[in-house]
Amino acid sequence: MRVEDVRAALRPDTVLISVMLANNEIGTVQPVAEIGALVEEERARGHRHLKLHTDAVQAAGRMKVDVAGLNCDLLSMSAHKLNAPKGVGALYVRRSTRLSPQSIGGHQERERRAGTESVPLIVAFGKAAQLAREELGERIEGVRRLRDRFEEGVAARVESIVFNGDRARRLPHLSNISFRYVEGEGLLINLDMQGVAVSTGSACSSGSLEPSPVIRALGRTELGVRG
Amino acid sequence: MRVEDVRAALRPDTVLISVMLANNEIGTVQPVAEIGALVEEERARGHRHLKLHTDAVQAAGRMKVDVAGLNCDLLSMSAHKLNAPKGVGALYVRRSTRLSPQSIGGHQERERRAGTESVPLIVAFGKAAQLAREELGERIEGVRRLRDRFEEGVAARVESIVFNGDRARRLPHLSNISFRYVEGEGLLINLDMQGVAVSTGSACSSGSLEPSPVIRALGRTELGVRG
Repeated sequence: MRVEDVRAALRPDTVLISVMLANNEIGTVQPVAEIGALVEEERARGHRHLKLHTDAVQAAGRMKVDVAGLNCDLLSMSAHKLNAPKGVGALYVRRSTRLSPQSIGGHQERERRAGTESVPLIVAFGKAAQLAREELGERIEGVRRLRDRFEEGVAARVESIVFNGDRARRLPHLSNISFRYVEGEGLLINLDMQGVAVSTGSACSSGSLEPSPVIRALGRTELGVRG
Repeated sequence: MRVEDVRAALRPDTVLISVMLANNEIGTVQPVAEIGALVEEERARGHRHLKLHTDAVQAAGRMKVDVAGLNCDLLSMSAHKLNAPKGVGALYVRRSTRLSPQSIGGHQERERRAGTESVPLIVAFGKAAQLAREELGERIEGVRRLRDRFEEGVAARVESIVFNGDRARRLPHLSNISFRYVEGEGLLINLDMQGVAVSTGSACSSGSLEPSPVIRALGRTELGVRG
């Protein structure tokens, strides 16, 4: 995604831009800071209600995440991506951003989200986030080294493969590979039988036999690799 | 609440009746099975889209909860009321009841609720529910004995009090008392300083100084007790 594409898609009645900070399948890091600067510029020009949300679920703990630097109004995170328990997340809300709740009923979280908060999960999330920040540099280097070694090994041994996603601007812990002439589900089952954990798409679409929309968007086709 | 009141409130375009199985503040058990029979009767008369939901959050683990006996289409529960961790709940959905999701995005839970499920919390909830069912009789008797002893002690020592809620049809673990001529928040602070945990309303409205809507609905006024 390029900032120019976002600018071109803006309409006078656009109120929200929502962009993943980094993609969950291929790890490509999006130019959110640049989009944030565009949003600031648009607001200064009178486009007052325009807001920027970024989904940092995949990015948090794998790269530096700084809401001020990104210039975003909303940023969402999930605890379990930081090794904390599943079932809790966080939404950064910049001052002056008004939200209308999806869950109503109780007055919890200043009426932004009704329902009993799980304090133990919140505490665990806080601790995990603190550790992730303290150890960010070494964690990034650790997984990057493993990932690169893995990709070099695959590239040296397997023909007709394509690595998906931006080679430079990407998260250190993800590897996404298209295997030409091989059916994904069959490959998954065979690798699983040999003790290698892979997936043909995100966990959100597990069980689906449809090709990943992210990979399709890159121009890969079902039968092979285009171009 | 009486079944006649529900019947009187029904309109030809009513699609949902939602009733607490037992109230969270005073513990009164509502005639949900009777309302379920009314709903069946209405459906047999051609009111086809009428559904019954009951909120069993407070009731589960404190009384027998049987969806078949209640004749409800939907029943909700929260794990933490059964001593399981906070952050997970369950919705019973009777076959042929169609739901439209509040959280959309991922395909989890057959597209009924998007978002990564917390398997550890779900397992804990299941175990807690199993224990609650196995120990239901003794748990009910245990808390009922304590609650009754507490209420007898208060009644013997304090004047100008009124016990709120139905004396017979109520959960065994709740006690709700109006103290005439005493301001609730002051009483709460004084009792807290003496190590007695009380609340002036539900946790959902903690921090609020407004009188409980449940107690108001019983006819109690702010200045004293009516009638």
